[in-house]
Amino acid sequence: MARLRSRIDELAKIGPTPAGGSCRLALTDEDRQGRDLVCRWMNDLGMTVTVDAIGNVFGVWNCADGLPVMTGSHIDTVRTGGIYDGNYGVLAGLEVIEACQLAGITPKRPLAVGVFTDEEGARFAPDMLGSLVYVGGMSVEEALDVVGIDGARLGDELSRIGYAGMTPCPGIAPHAFVELHIEQGPLLEAQQQRLGAVTGVQGISWQEVTITGQSNHAGTTPMSLRKDPVAAAADLAVFVHDLAHRYGGNQVCTVGKLDVHPNLVNVVAARAQLTLDVRNTDESLLQKAEAEIASHFAVLGQSYGVKIDTKRLARFEPVQFNDDVIDLVETICTDIDNATIRMPSGAGHDAQMLARVCPTAMIFVPSKDGISHNPAEHTDDADLENGANALLRTMLALADHDFKENQ
Amino acid sequence: MARLRSRIDELAKIGPTPAGGSCRLALTDEDRQGRDLVCRWMNDLGMTVTVDAIGNVFGVWNCADGLPVMTGSHIDTVRTGGIYDGNYGVLAGLEVIEACQLAGITPKRPLAVGVFTDEEGARFAPDMLGSLVYVGGMSVEEALDVVGIDGARLGDELSRIGYAGMTPCPGIAPHAFVELHIEQGPLLEAQQQRLGAVTGVQGISWQEVTITGQSNHAGTTPMSLRKDPVAAAADLAVFVHDLAHRYGGNQVCTVGKLDVHPNLVNVVAARAQLTLDVRNTDESLLQKAEAEIASHFAVLGQSYGVKIDTKRLARFEPVQFNDDVIDLVETICTDIDNATIRMPSGAGHDAQMLARVCPTAMIFVPSKDGISHNPAEHTDDADLENGANALLRTMLALADHDFKENQ
Repeated sequence: MARLRSRIDELAKIGPTPAGGSCRLALTDEDRQGRDLVCRWMNDLGMTVTVDAIGNVFGVWNCADGLPVMTGSHIDTVRTGGIYDGNYGVLAGLEVIEACQLAGITPKRPLAVGVFTDEEGARFAPDMLGSLVYVGGMSVEEALDVVGIDGARLGDELSRIGYAGMTPCPGIAPHAFVELHIEQGPLLEAQQQRLGAVTGVQGISWQEVTITGQSNHAGTTPMSLRKDPVAAAADLAVFVHDLAHRYGGNQVCTVGKLDVHPNLVNVVAARAQLTLDVRNTDESLLQKAEAEIASHFAVLGQSYGVKIDTKRLARFEPVQFNDDVIDLVETICTDIDNATIRMPSGAGHDAQMLARVCPTAMIFVPSKDGISHNPAEHTDDADLENGANALLRTMLALADHDFKENQ
Repeated sequence: MARLRSRIDELAKIGPTPAGGSCRLALTDEDRQGRDLVCRWMNDLGMTVTVDAIGNVFGVWNCADGLPVMTGSHIDTVRTGGIYDGNYGVLAGLEVIEACQLAGITPKRPLAVGVFTDEEGARFAPDMLGSLVYVGGMSVEEALDVVGIDGARLGDELSRIGYAGMTPCPGIAPHAFVELHIEQGPLLEAQQQRLGAVTGVQGISWQEVTITGQSNHAGTTPMSLRKDPVAAAADLAVFVHDLAHRYGGNQVCTVGKLDVHPNLVNVVAARAQLTLDVRNTDESLLQKAEAEIASHFAVLGQSYGVKIDTKRLARFEPVQFNDDVIDLVETICTDIDNATIRMPSGAGHDAQMLARVCPTAMIFVPSKDGISHNPAEHTDDADLENGANALLRTMLALADHDFKENQ
């Protein structure tokens, strides 16, 4: 644990923020320094380091022949990032290699640690860009032409920091992939669990809803003559909240953004605009939720005399991880900590891209108060150690495991 | 009608706005020019013009002995005012005097037209300040010390424009008061009525509600672990909307202002702040509504795990006008237009202050689309003429009418 702790702290010193977090936006000088440090550690461990055309870095311990068992994550951060998000997964991967080497364990397949470019998407959209390109979901050319929030071209920045590598994309499909990550949510803590076997990533449906009514005097306009967009927006927010509770399971619905015009105490508003964030691990339930919400738009239009316009902001189908890998993770976590839970991830991770090309799952450790993307992000050392142990044992088990074809 | 139309248009030329409205904020140079014009017209009609200590202007036609029957309103406007709000009532009062004089009618009591200072409250709070001081609801000293939105002291501005008068406040209680005003709401138009007998002014309860929850990731936080202030705010908005419909009658409830922090699509918000505008003509129902809403705060706190803080922004009790005067107005309006409706006012008017000291009511004419405080404010000439006729006949009837003591 001392080695892992020390590597986490040393990496955190690159791009430090006043509140104790890290700011290493993708392909900045800070990102380069972070990459340089990780590459040095990989070299120190005798790993073969390669960089691909989109800047993903892979360290491979060629302890055996065949396709590697891969772990990995990212070391880029959001502007107000914590020190564990992504970094923990990468550095725990190095710890797995070092622990095996020191213990004289020789896995039956090579072990690889990947550092994927621009997972956060905080500078260059979309997020998970590096792993998306790695699995062939986006061409290298298109990715290099992406322009960031600061006007910089991704390809130019990649060359500038010296990480435009030679290995082509898409890359090889590993034997299996397992990613260790902090939960970034409150579920493990709430259920007093210290390890989670992640079953997949939720599907996401985002839309912006604009409700147009008629602005009127709040005193002189009887209720029957109103076209109140705020009342309709409130009805919609209650509807999606109730829908999430009615569906149960992994269904969540959030109205996080709501703007009213002209936004005055004594004026029935002219317009309200809100966002709906609807997620489920089950695509059919997600579609059912979307359909119910669309039907409710018609009800709102009638009941409140308002006009409703919607704009699709994002839509991703759920990702289901590999049952064999989930089962392995679950068994190992239970063995380490007496208990574990199977849980979906509410956030996106590089693992969901790798799941397109090889058997994949994830391991979660608790996030204190569910806080992430924030300098206050914290996971106890004991949990970090637990997670690294689970990763070690899972990678060794995967090296021993033969997957059936076409599973 | 030609005279009234021409006076409205001439007054509207003082402080004109590009869209065809007027901007004569209280005690500005434009307000002084408007006052000067109205005083000249009063003098032309042989009226005795006096100005009181808070700048209220009174023109009295001393055609008989005794306490006057008074009408009146205001000529100050909001920044984006229309040309009818207030002005119409003052200028129709002058038209009543001129019409009587030309027809050789001698009322049994003096007729007076009042122009009250700072009715809008758009520059100096509170609104209806001049009539409030006139009836003794605020001392002259306190009123003169009010500081406006531009940092100016009311007393200084009053002296500067030459309208710090000699007549003391509170002023004499008239025999009766009747104010003619555009409705500023959609009710007459919706009911296809052209004259309304106003029964009183709604009571107003304004509060600002701050709901504090806990900010969380919209993907990783299960519904059961959320403290979502937007969901609670939506529940509250739906509750007050339903309450208004459940109470019926003159109950109205409005959420016109709603702000969310941090206001991001994928973040369960930390805080939502909204305003509640609750009005009723019946004080006991208004108190009942306030009590129900307060009870619901407790329900919200429990259901959503949020903290609720409230701040009182305004509270005015309803004003009930005098039955004799309402009946007179209703009879006369029905006679003029075959039909009328009794209706409350949703907006505040000088008449509600005069109601404290003498028998009072109001006459409403339609506002096109209910629009007011807007250059698009419009009332048809035929309706303006109807209203002036109703005012004339009501003032004459009031001059003939003896009120029972202690009614």
